[in-house]
Amino acid sequence: MAKTVALVGTLDTKGEEIDFLRSLILARGHRVIIADTGILGKPHLKADISRREIARAGGADIDILKEKGDEAFAQSIMAAGLKEIILSLVESKKIQGLLAIGGGQGSIIVAPTLKSLPFGFPKLLVSTKVTQAGARPFVGSKDVLILPPVADLAGINRLTRTILTNAAGAISGMVEIEQPEIEDKPLVVMSMNGTVTDCGLAVKAMLEKKGYEVLVFHTIGTGGEALEEYVKSNEVVGVIELGVNEITNELMGGLASSGPDRLTAAGKRGVPQIVVPGSADFINFLGPETVPPRYKRRKIHSHNPQATLVRTNVRENRILGKTIADKLNQARGPVVVLWPSKGLSTLDRKGRPFWDPEADMALLKALKRHLDPRIPLIESDAYINEPEFAQAVFMAFEKIGKES
Amino acid sequence: MAKTVALVGTLDTKGEEIDFLRSLILARGHRVIIADTGILGKPHLKADISRREIARAGGADIDILKEKGDEAFAQSIMAAGLKEIILSLVESKKIQGLLAIGGGQGSIIVAPTLKSLPFGFPKLLVSTKVTQAGARPFVGSKDVLILPPVADLAGINRLTRTILTNAAGAISGMVEIEQPEIEDKPLVVMSMNGTVTDCGLAVKAMLEKKGYEVLVFHTIGTGGEALEEYVKSNEVVGVIELGVNEITNELMGGLASSGPDRLTAAGKRGVPQIVVPGSADFINFLGPETVPPRYKRRKIHSHNPQATLVRTNVRENRILGKTIADKLNQARGPVVVLWPSKGLSTLDRKGRPFWDPEADMALLKALKRHLDPRIPLIESDAYINEPEFAQAVFMAFEKIGKES
Repeated sequence: MAKTVALVGTLDTKGEEIDFLRSLILARGHRVIIADTGILGKPHLKADISRREIARAGGADIDILKEKGDEAFAQSIMAAGLKEIILSLVESKKIQGLLAIGGGQGSIIVAPTLKSLPFGFPKLLVSTKVTQAGARPFVGSKDVLILPPVADLAGINRLTRTILTNAAGAISGMVEIEQPEIEDKPLVVMSMNGTVTDCGLAVKAMLEKKGYEVLVFHTIGTGGEALEEYVKSNEVVGVIELGVNEITNELMGGLASSGPDRLTAAGKRGVPQIVVPGSADFINFLGPETVPPRYKRRKIHSHNPQATLVRTNVRENRILGKTIADKLNQARGPVVVLWPSKGLSTLDRKGRPFWDPEADMALLKALKRHLDPRIPLIESDAYINEPEFAQAVFMAFEKIGKES
Repeated sequence: MAKTVALVGTLDTKGEEIDFLRSLILARGHRVIIADTGILGKPHLKADISRREIARAGGADIDILKEKGDEAFAQSIMAAGLKEIILSLVESKKIQGLLAIGGGQGSIIVAPTLKSLPFGFPKLLVSTKVTQAGARPFVGSKDVLILPPVADLAGINRLTRTILTNAAGAISGMVEIEQPEIEDKPLVVMSMNGTVTDCGLAVKAMLEKKGYEVLVFHTIGTGGEALEEYVKSNEVVGVIELGVNEITNELMGGLASSGPDRLTAAGKRGVPQIVVPGSADFINFLGPETVPPRYKRRKIHSHNPQATLVRTNVRENRILGKTIADKLNQARGPVVVLWPSKGLSTLDRKGRPFWDPEADMALLKALKRHLDPRIPLIESDAYINEPEFAQAVFMAFEKIGKES
């Protein structure tokens, strides 16, 4: 069945490429809606959604944007307008996929749209910017296919032609393929990482045995962002947090932050939460050269060349405990906090490099001090990755589910 | 027509996902060849290319790799073996596309293969690693489609199912779509960036008018890498270098390096080269926080929030001049160096922030001193982005082409 693909780009500088992509997608039997995010130059071809419409949806007049000459402002207007128009087309099922191409400006304008499209919606960005500045500023925590075009998108030549043809093929294939039916199991969302894997997999297995489906997000920054985003917009019966390191990273300047809104979506929607302060013993960095000087004298663990962990101290864990408590106190649904007394990660255990009972105790005390009394804090005499602790998490989850 | 897709992953930890992808690609009417890059666990399904074969192609026995327990070594063996096997399948036209999925280990093992596949060959990587560590370690300067799977690839659930289905759709669409015929125009490769755009576009237009096709690479690190890679493996009648900043970055620790081999591929193949030391006036960094302390007191220009430029000084330009000369002296083909006396970039011109005749002169002197006398150095009394200078570049190119 024919589908409709939105093609997004600046028709002044990327008009030739958009025109080429359109012809390929039409040749596959699909329909195309072209959105022009250009601002200054003359469009190379006619858009279905003009820059004027986009600027208007963003709250401004395109002529005024041009005259004003404030590039950053114009980009933000076009970005907001594009997002509104595209999301409403998705909502009304008028488009089934989106293909955007961009240099710097084009990529910046389409970024908020890409970050807002639903998970699973076919979306592809061909951008010269993603290999240098990284993909995250443009795609956030979303499942955007990214294609670095290698050569400049400055006209059609034998290399860009081949690469754009692949992009057209990829978006066509995505809108054509049938998405499998989704079973209607109750869904649990879980956060996890390599230092709490045994706990996570054990809890997951117990939940699956009981007929739940479990979605796991890795607490490396984007994972937590995706978790929040997912919980915000999908039906979820419970959230189990086994890694709080993204919150530590946000507070302490680490490189695995999920922004200030981590640990809030479930609370806002009243979804039951089990929270284990797992992985509270470290701040994440990438290569050793990315560890700031202020942490050089801490205990440091090199997990692999792209993962260096810094031990949190008493002061930091106090702040972390208060922050977690403040977030959970806002929750509209039930919350239970579980505490594994014998260690918070594979590294934080007797005999392991980050074992530091004093720092852990500071976190526990801060939690006790700041948590709303209606939120139970259950202490377990186990290490986080022991089977008993996974059992305790599972039981707490079953109990909270029945009560809510 | 049915195509064959290579499916690559560790069949112990990602077997379920590979199996699911296989069923989708088969359902589209294509063939699948599965390569198992797993090392430790039991494969979830039978591979067409077993881990044993891959290890052997990499020069080791899989049982010994397992026993030895040296993860990094085992990964390097598997990576080398996979690359050899896949490239030979591509060579003999037995596969028309490659889809790889991976967590940390899987992504590291497939990276050298992805970096070696020809431009335009359909290749897609679903990896949990690319949003955190960046895509470049895994795809280099190649046109690899990258899909961040958002949730952990730890079993099939409603989210991974949707995302993997999109991946299967994308690779199917890419192998299905017909690549356009390539016209047989003589091909010129050019390096360029935003500070020498006027020169680049003017030269490009003159070349196109004469019947050449021009491929432009942006000198931001990956661009130069791609340029070298492209010149190495394709028929090119000439290379015009308008930006040498990637070499400066390699020498001075900037963030737009293309590695030590920049400015060598054309020379090795004897391809005629016109070299303009454009953009020699700066070292590239990303945000202002990425500028190392040693440069804090230099002239710094903030181009945009993700592009901060540091002015090169006399000492650095001497080193740069010698380095460029040493590289060009090795060239087996003809080389001409053109020097725009009135400025090397939009920033390095009278009245502009990086205008520094002394630093520029140091570069010119170093070039004169170290360049082989057989390499002409033509000084032009123009600024790099003036039409006269573009004309001079074009004329030098025509002349060198006739002589070679």
